[in-house]
Amino acid sequence: MNDVLERLSELLEQRKSADPQSSYVAKLYAKGMDSILKKVGEESAETIIAAKNGDNEHLIYETADLWFHTLVMLAHAGLKPNDILEELARREGLSGIAEKASRSESGAA
Amino acid sequence: MNDVLERLSELLEQRKSADPQSSYVAKLYAKGMDSILKKVGEESAETIIAAKNGDNEHLIYETADLWFHTLVMLAHAGLKPNDILEELARREGLSGIAEKASRSESGAA
Amino acid sequence: MNDVLERLSELLEQRKSADPQSSYVAKLYAKGMDSILKKVGEESAETIIAAKNGDNEHLIYETADLWFHTLVMLAHAGLKPNDILEELARREGLSGIAEKASRSESGAA
Amino acid sequence: MNDVLERLSELLEQRKSADPQSSYVAKLYAKGMDSILKKVGEESAETIIAAKNGDNEHLIYETADLWFHTLVMLAHAGLKPNDILEELARREGLSGIAEKASRSESGAA
Repeated sequence: MNDVLERLSELLEQRKSADPQSSYVAKLYAKGMDSILKKVGEESAETIIAAKNGDNEHLIYETADLWFHTLVMLAHAGLKPNDILEELARREGLSGIAEKASRSESGAA
Repeated sequence: MNDVLERLSELLEQRKSADPQSSYVAKLYAKGMDSILKKVGEESAETIIAAKNGDNEHLIYETADLWFHTLVMLAHAGLKPNDILEELARREGLSGIAEKASRSESGAA
Repeated sequence: MNDVLERLSELLEQRKSADPQSSYVAKLYAKGMDSILKKVGEESAETIIAAKNGDNEHLIYETADLWFHTLVMLAHAGLKPNDILEELARREGLSGIAEKASRSESGAA
Repeated sequence: MNDVLERLSELLEQRKSADPQSSYVAKLYAKGMDSILKKVGEESAETIIAAKNGDNEHLIYETADLWFHTLVMLAHAGLKPNDILEELARREGLSGIAEKASRSESGAA
């Protein structure tokens, strides 16, 4: 499972040169960043609603939608999932997640 | 980098038995799902704002925050990052992302 | 202009007994609260994006969409715009907006 | 109750010339649009969560927070609540909300 994000990332790169009519992602790229970000906001709301419903099957589905659209956003911005994983690892590795949070209440970890 | 999500997931499991005062995540678990989901909504908005600012360093930071809090949400719901990766792989593997989207306009892929 | 929210509220009440096929709002009621809240989240993201674009005409449009869907949400929950206006007036009247905020960092005002 | 938005709007205008340390709103203006929009996203998520909890008292509180921060956003963009009310009235008046929606599935009304 570990390479799913990498494989998805490669697929999303390939879609950049595809005909906008040929796939959902190619169409989303053509519409531009605002349309991609609108989807990020939409899927975030749907994730929250699914979690409140306590329906884990639906929560998996909506979280996958949310992650997927953040991956499209990253690709459109010239970034890779690895950039995010490295940032998450950096937080964990440098100081430990708990320690970092204790130093900064606005920190994510 | 591929196992970062797995390592984070293990860390988040360990935090479940930690003293709420001992770490940011333990405190978030203690506050409950609503507080976690509030953070998901907040980080989603910050990700959108960072993307609009065209500041990739900040976008990496905010997307990491967003992913991180969805991981806390999943852990609190008894789910693992692998559940999301499997769902993403399933969409890709079964039918191809482009094909699936062509069958359903509400599908993520 | 002052009675627009009241007139909209009356209209939204009337829609409750309308055929779901007869109007956008009647259809939204029939789909239920989750669909209404999904729209609130979606329009909130679109409002943020329009504000970041510095396009005031678009910002008016998206904010109207956001307010409109919160009005549908309130109606579906058995509430009126007046409940919100009274809460806003209460905050202002009891203590002054600035004063209240100084007493509570989590307060809106 | 009808003039609450107008009175709030006047108050928000006055805060523009206030010392950033003197009130919550003056501080928010000083932080700038991104901080205001972050609050819009945050309060939108909290509104969704309150609605899912079926707690109408809390829903009134969170919706008031959401409206309040959209008013701060409008003031910071040089707009007035009346601009939104006029847009809502225009939609209603020109064509009737139901009729408009039947002509355009992406329309708000």
